[in-house]
Amino acid sequence: MDAIEQTLLEQIAGLHEIPTGAYNIRANGQTESRNTTANIDIISKPDGTGIDIRIKPGTKHESVHIPVILSQTGLQEVVYNDFYVGEGADVVIVAGCGIHNSGCDTSKHDGIHRFFLEKGARVRYVEKHYGEGDGNGKRIMNPKTVVELGQDAYMEMDSVQIKGVDSTIRTTEAVLADGARFVVTEKLMTHGSQDAKSEFVVDLDGKGSSANVVSRSVAREDSRQLFVSKIHGNNKCSGHSECDSIIMDDAKISAVPEITANHPDAALIHEAAIGKIAGEQITKLMTLGLTEQEAEEQIVNGFLK
Amino acid sequence: MDAIEQTLLEQIAGLHEIPTGAYNIRANGQTESRNTTANIDIISKPDGTGIDIRIKPGTKHESVHIPVILSQTGLQEVVYNDFYVGEGADVVIVAGCGIHNSGCDTSKHDGIHRFFLEKGARVRYVEKHYGEGDGNGKRIMNPKTVVELGQDAYMEMDSVQIKGVDSTIRTTEAVLADGARFVVTEKLMTHGSQDAKSEFVVDLDGKGSSANVVSRSVAREDSRQLFVSKIHGNNKCSGHSECDSIIMDDAKISAVPEITANHPDAALIHEAAIGKIAGEQITKLMTLGLTEQEAEEQIVNGFLK
Repeated sequence: MDAIEQTLLEQIAGLHEIPTGAYNIRANGQTESRNTTANIDIISKPDGTGIDIRIKPGTKHESVHIPVILSQTGLQEVVYNDFYVGEGADVVIVAGCGIHNSGCDTSKHDGIHRFFLEKGARVRYVEKHYGEGDGNGKRIMNPKTVVELGQDAYMEMDSVQIKGVDSTIRTTEAVLADGARFVVTEKLMTHGSQDAKSEFVVDLDGKGSSANVVSRSVAREDSRQLFVSKIHGNNKCSGHSECDSIIMDDAKISAVPEITANHPDAALIHEAAIGKIAGEQITKLMTLGLTEQEAEEQIVNGFLK
Repeated sequence: MDAIEQTLLEQIAGLHEIPTGAYNIRANGQTESRNTTANIDIISKPDGTGIDIRIKPGTKHESVHIPVILSQTGLQEVVYNDFYVGEGADVVIVAGCGIHNSGCDTSKHDGIHRFFLEKGARVRYVEKHYGEGDGNGKRIMNPKTVVELGQDAYMEMDSVQIKGVDSTIRTTEAVLADGARFVVTEKLMTHGSQDAKSEFVVDLDGKGSSANVVSRSVAREDSRQLFVSKIHGNNKCSGHSECDSIIMDDAKISAVPEITANHPDAALIHEAAIGKIAGEQITKLMTLGLTEQEAEEQIVNGFLK
């Protein structure tokens, strides 16, 4: 693995070296390295379209890393990865995609990740997207996440896309059984002429199920963002969705949340706010010695922390 | 005017007798009576499709009542009424439609009201919709309100539909110039197998313009409600939209608000909540001697007050 690939790995997975536990590192369309454990198996799909990750019931305190890096300009791929998480397991899954494009062709990674959590299983899922490279070729990522939460299952999804992705359509779909919980934290920043669409569809089918979707975003320069969330309360359940955005320069932001109660015991709430950084916040930091630009950076970093 | 017509008039316009000021009472597709004042003229459109209401610049403390009643089963009509409000005028406009349907045919009133407010004009617009009658014929009302607010103009719109309307599509569109303000309060209750859709589209085009759209609704029995609001911030402006709904029985409610910032100085906020009446609220009122049903009524009435 060369220096560029190592930088990408560090950006998307915080990896300075080969991770402990199970992993599958995919580089430029091929498996670079793989490790399985007694409880976590990783199997290539027979048709070569991706991998199946099988986590045994009761597996605790283990992790799976499946980063994807593209450093070859013009590479375009679609990958299907399925996670089967056994009853009562409690694991951390780190995915993500880093693209370094120093050429003039479009590099693109579409990752479709499906999660099947059995009864009482718990997953913390971390996903980062990062792009770099000085070529004119675009860096495009379209992650799709499909989640099926069994009875009393819990999934926490942290999704971050801070830099360098020219175009993205992010789709997350979740269906919850009785007592299941789904918690999403999304952080998004766009700049230049980037385009980002983020859509969540959550079906609260189970009695006592709950979802909390929180998105924070910053749109700078000429970038555009569209946030869509649909929460359907189909049983006694609770759902909350929140979208806070900072708008700067000539950016444009739309938020279109939908809450639908199909059951009298569904309690659903949505909040959305779009605005620029308050002038007094900047003034305050400037009196502490920062330039206006540094003050803005500080506030944006704090907002996306 | 017979007793039925008088009841309708009272329900929709709070009128026990002929109102003071300008008025145009429309009953069963025809003008029943009309009054104009020195400052407020009412003219039938040459093609018979409705009326033009012309309010002179500077007119203060005057009112216009234009109630519509339908007591004849099976009557279906579309009416276009245009309000031209001169610079600096400050008036109250009361519209509304009452349908008494004791037959088996559908009675339907579609009213398209357009408001053109000149610089600095102020309007308080009150609109009530009410249906009654023991026939099987449906009572349908589709009010459409189109508002153009000139510089520094202000319009307050109170819209109430509490009872008896089987199906309604309510559409409100507003375009605001510099410094204009638009404040909407909507109250809606549906029951039986009623259907209601309420849609707001507000374009904050002017510098310093602002809009506040607040909708409160109660859906009972098998009724369905859909609330849609679209606020577009196209300049330095502020927009707020809020939708609170109580869901009961087997009702279904959807809220789909959209906020779009096309300008970095647009500050937009949306809030929505759907839920049932809290159990402890009912318990509290029951300890004061109310039955469960009476307690529910009290809470619903308070919510829609």
